[in-house]
Amino acid sequence: MSRTVYVNGDYLPEEEAKISVFDRGFLFADAVYEVTSVLSGKLVDFAAHMKRLERSLSELKMTRPASEADLLAIHRELVARNGIDEGLVYMQVGRGAADRDFLFPPEDTKPSLVLFTQAMGLRDKPAGRTGIKVASVPDLRWGRRDIKTVQLLYPSIAKTEAKAKGADDAWLVEDGMVTEGTSNNAYILTEDGALVTRALSHAILHGITRAAVLRMAKEDGLRIEERSFTLDEAKRAKEAFITSASAFVLPVVEIDGLTLGDGTPGPVARRLREIYLAEAERTAI
Amino acid sequence: MSRTVYVNGDYLPEEEAKISVFDRGFLFADAVYEVTSVLSGKLVDFAAHMKRLERSLSELKMTRPASEADLLAIHRELVARNGIDEGLVYMQVGRGAADRDFLFPPEDTKPSLVLFTQAMGLRDKPAGRTGIKVASVPDLRWGRRDIKTVQLLYPSIAKTEAKAKGADDAWLVEDGMVTEGTSNNAYILTEDGALVTRALSHAILHGITRAAVLRMAKEDGLRIEERSFTLDEAKRAKEAFITSASAFVLPVVEIDGLTLGDGTPGPVARRLREIYLAEAERTAI
Repeated sequence: MSRTVYVNGDYLPEEEAKISVFDRGFLFADAVYEVTSVLSGKLVDFAAHMKRLERSLSELKMTRPASEADLLAIHRELVARNGIDEGLVYMQVGRGAADRDFLFPPEDTKPSLVLFTQAMGLRDKPAGRTGIKVASVPDLRWGRRDIKTVQLLYPSIAKTEAKAKGADDAWLVEDGMVTEGTSNNAYILTEDGALVTRALSHAILHGITRAAVLRMAKEDGLRIEERSFTLDEAKRAKEAFITSASAFVLPVVEIDGLTLGDGTPGPVARRLREIYLAEAERTAI
Repeated sequence: MSRTVYVNGDYLPEEEAKISVFDRGFLFADAVYEVTSVLSGKLVDFAAHMKRLERSLSELKMTRPASEADLLAIHRELVARNGIDEGLVYMQVGRGAADRDFLFPPEDTKPSLVLFTQAMGLRDKPAGRTGIKVASVPDLRWGRRDIKTVQLLYPSIAKTEAKAKGADDAWLVEDGMVTEGTSNNAYILTEDGALVTRALSHAILHGITRAAVLRMAKEDGLRIEERSFTLDEAKRAKEAFITSASAFVLPVVEIDGLTLGDGTPGPVARRLREIYLAEAERTAI
């Protein structure tokens, strides 16, 4: 069965879901996006995604394509039409279509808005129980990774390279320090029990799940250190994990072929995954 | 009158020129491009554009969408159908459409191919006579600018910022050194008559016009230094200019509000523009 996709005001079968070749998202990667998880047919942390979208648009001087209420209605309509119980809603907002020019088009150019769903097991995926392997790859991305743009070619290359090395994802490394995963934030638990993750800056994505998990970890009594860490420190860590809106919390059990601990997910990562999932289910709308 | 646009095998009116929202060019900026100039209805330096396209595809492990002969035929067909005497042919090649996943899709995924024309005065544009003003902007692009991808959001931002400052384009600066313009290579002529432009590396685009102009400058007796230069050195230069496939050679007469020489195009830039144009006209196919 074909999915129903939302494109600039229309609900269309996916085969007909097309945008102009003059869309600046296609020609200049001049677009931002959000991916919201769906659990039991409900949207996880929707308000936080809207807030981040607002920030991305503001940083890039892009026009908001619709009100938050309208965007929520479109999300829900797609979830209903595609019968999504568990999965994702992808939303992309662009500066719109205009004849090709590096200069931004006139401010009254209509922004473009595309949404589609992906049905996908999230809660019980095997990686939640087994953990994932990561391989380090140099971080060659642009300087504003805090803005969630579709300039995703390099993360895509890095993940594909990591897969070719037998890993599940890449950890990106810059100036000797881990920045983050290809589409997730990276964490380690040190020998003395501190939970370490890179501080927010232009170098990393301001993860919504990151904010939630750090809050929950703190409430759970963990000591948090927001600072950079090296790959070597990560390899000596008691535990490691990643967070993202679609992966939630996923334990990391191997870094560059080196097994962490006994090679199974550690208790802290497992507990944070459980706490996060329970809270996500409870607060989804 | 509507342009005719080429999209994946079809010649379409521009209003109907659309691609799937699942095209990886739209979702991941997973696409490369070339822009070929048209003079008197003929393509300038077409073979060099094909060679660079081949390199971009190879660096990104992308599939070639059609033979060089077929791509030439499509270029010519669009020039004819749109009656382009002077202007540009834009060609974008992507990894194709697939359900959204950071991992590259299967290798047999059909690459996408889009071409369109832009009618535009190139030979006699006023900037060729008056020169352009540039403003410096930090270079925040990714680490592989030698691959001509559509990850062009930052160059687009930089050009728009430069325009807001009253300039015509930006010169991007990294670690104190000028890398290049937003879609062109940057040159200065020093007091002692050396023509200086940054050496090829991953930091800059391997300009086709750059290669041609350096060859002609050498044949014309100029001393060439392929090395990095600072903004300060540029501000003290006798002349400055940019080159690109669509701008050819354009004199720079102002950098960050500081006038170079008497504020008019210098003799070397003017001469190189003339020589390049004559050669381009002579060898266009």
